[in-house]
Amino acid sequence: MRVKMVVAYDGTNYSGWQIQPNGVTIEQKLNEALQALLGEDIRVTGASRTDAGVHSLGNVCIFDTDTRMPAEKISYALNQRLPEDIVVQDSCEVPDTFHPRFSRSRKTYEYRILNRRFRMPTRRLDTYFYHYPLDVEKMQEAADYLVGEHDFKSFCAVNAQSKTSVRTIYACTVTKEADIITIRVTGNGFLYNMVRIIAGTLIKVGAGEFAPQEMQTILDACDRSVAGPTAPAHGLTMIGLEYE
Amino acid sequence: MRVKMVVAYDGTNYSGWQIQPNGVTIEQKLNEALQALLGEDIRVTGASRTDAGVHSLGNVCIFDTDTRMPAEKISYALNQRLPEDIVVQDSCEVPDTFHPRFSRSRKTYEYRILNRRFRMPTRRLDTYFYHYPLDVEKMQEAADYLVGEHDFKSFCAVNAQSKTSVRTIYACTVTKEADIITIRVTGNGFLYNMVRIIAGTLIKVGAGEFAPQEMQTILDACDRSVAGPTAPAHGLTMIGLEYE
Repeated sequence: MRVKMVVAYDGTNYSGWQIQPNGVTIEQKLNEALQALLGEDIRVTGASRTDAGVHSLGNVCIFDTDTRMPAEKISYALNQRLPEDIVVQDSCEVPDTFHPRFSRSRKTYEYRILNRRFRMPTRRLDTYFYHYPLDVEKMQEAADYLVGEHDFKSFCAVNAQSKTSVRTIYACTVTKEADIITIRVTGNGFLYNMVRIIAGTLIKVGAGEFAPQEMQTILDACDRSVAGPTAPAHGLTMIGLEYE
Repeated sequence: MRVKMVVAYDGTNYSGWQIQPNGVTIEQKLNEALQALLGEDIRVTGASRTDAGVHSLGNVCIFDTDTRMPAEKISYALNQRLPEDIVVQDSCEVPDTFHPRFSRSRKTYEYRILNRRFRMPTRRLDTYFYHYPLDVEKMQEAADYLVGEHDFKSFCAVNAQSKTSVRTIYACTVTKEADIITIRVTGNGFLYNMVRIIAGTLIKVGAGEFAPQEMQTILDACDRSVAGPTAPAHGLTMIGLEYE
């Protein structure tokens, strides 16, 4: 049977999702725990191969297994074998045709900025500290330009390998609660580093270095060098995916 | 001159505030950093000697120094010498008569409970995970009994050494946002483990083990054994102090 799992993790201590020769990854930890639990050579396939330091409340992965354990019980049993910074939130059986990356979905990410005079130790792992005051209204005005179907080439890492850089953003909101500014973006897919470059560009808008309407110029340019910098990984959290 | 500092920390990796023979403490880290910065044998005096694992957004401490460095600059300079889980939020000169424990103040603490089916890795450091659903309205109803001047002996660790166990609670609210229940309590002072015992007792109310009106019986008993358990330290955050 094919099992789908929803996985939350604190990415601080991992070299990202995808298995790699150097560094411990989420994918590796899940494979090892599943192999120990089920006694099979299991390889999970993830929806979003998050970068080193990026967090997730609900990444999705699948794997195929011959186990007789009910799919719903796997989450509970697996969590006993996982470190405390990786927790499976749900497990269920899905049709063999379901693939977490090729099935159509809406993905949501949040980029959090701690915008205050001094760092706040209790939020240092999941917010990016930015000292200078940011204008949230201007950031929202700029974010509005991103909504819709666009070529996001300006917001894609130069070394990325995607067939097309056209994506659809359904919503992009910038809100502030206490000292934390949250950029929340939902789309049908994201290019490599896209949310972090959006965040880095919106920070420049908030700081007054770009005018909000310059977002249109940046989009039109289809040139990575005109957008803002790639904001640091630890401010980014993958919130989840909804499949059609 | 006497300098007052406001200090925030993630208590996860410390054996609490107060210097002790075994284990690294916040007080020790501050003394060491101040001694390195100012070249004097500095000993800070803290307002709240928080326990191991307890966090703070704004604990207060003082120290006396002969430095010519302006008091307001000390926070910036000191943060360069402190680990990333301790951050001074403010420093200013105060009269020699000011003492952080003996001056009258209002203290606010928050106890946070992550109330959902599975643990959430990104909030594991500053929330206490509780799996069974809790009734927030009943918890608020119970919390209302605590407001006012009472003898809180039932909510004090048995080995505590206080002259009196009478304290005044100005406000005690229980709110829920997404999966996190926050117990916020403001008072003129707290007995040893008092907020954690209040939290442990309110959790029992929320789970249906105590009726809300039993809070009155528990208060009247003046007996630690009738209240709920001491909730774990890592759910507790000292929010701050306001001096009169």
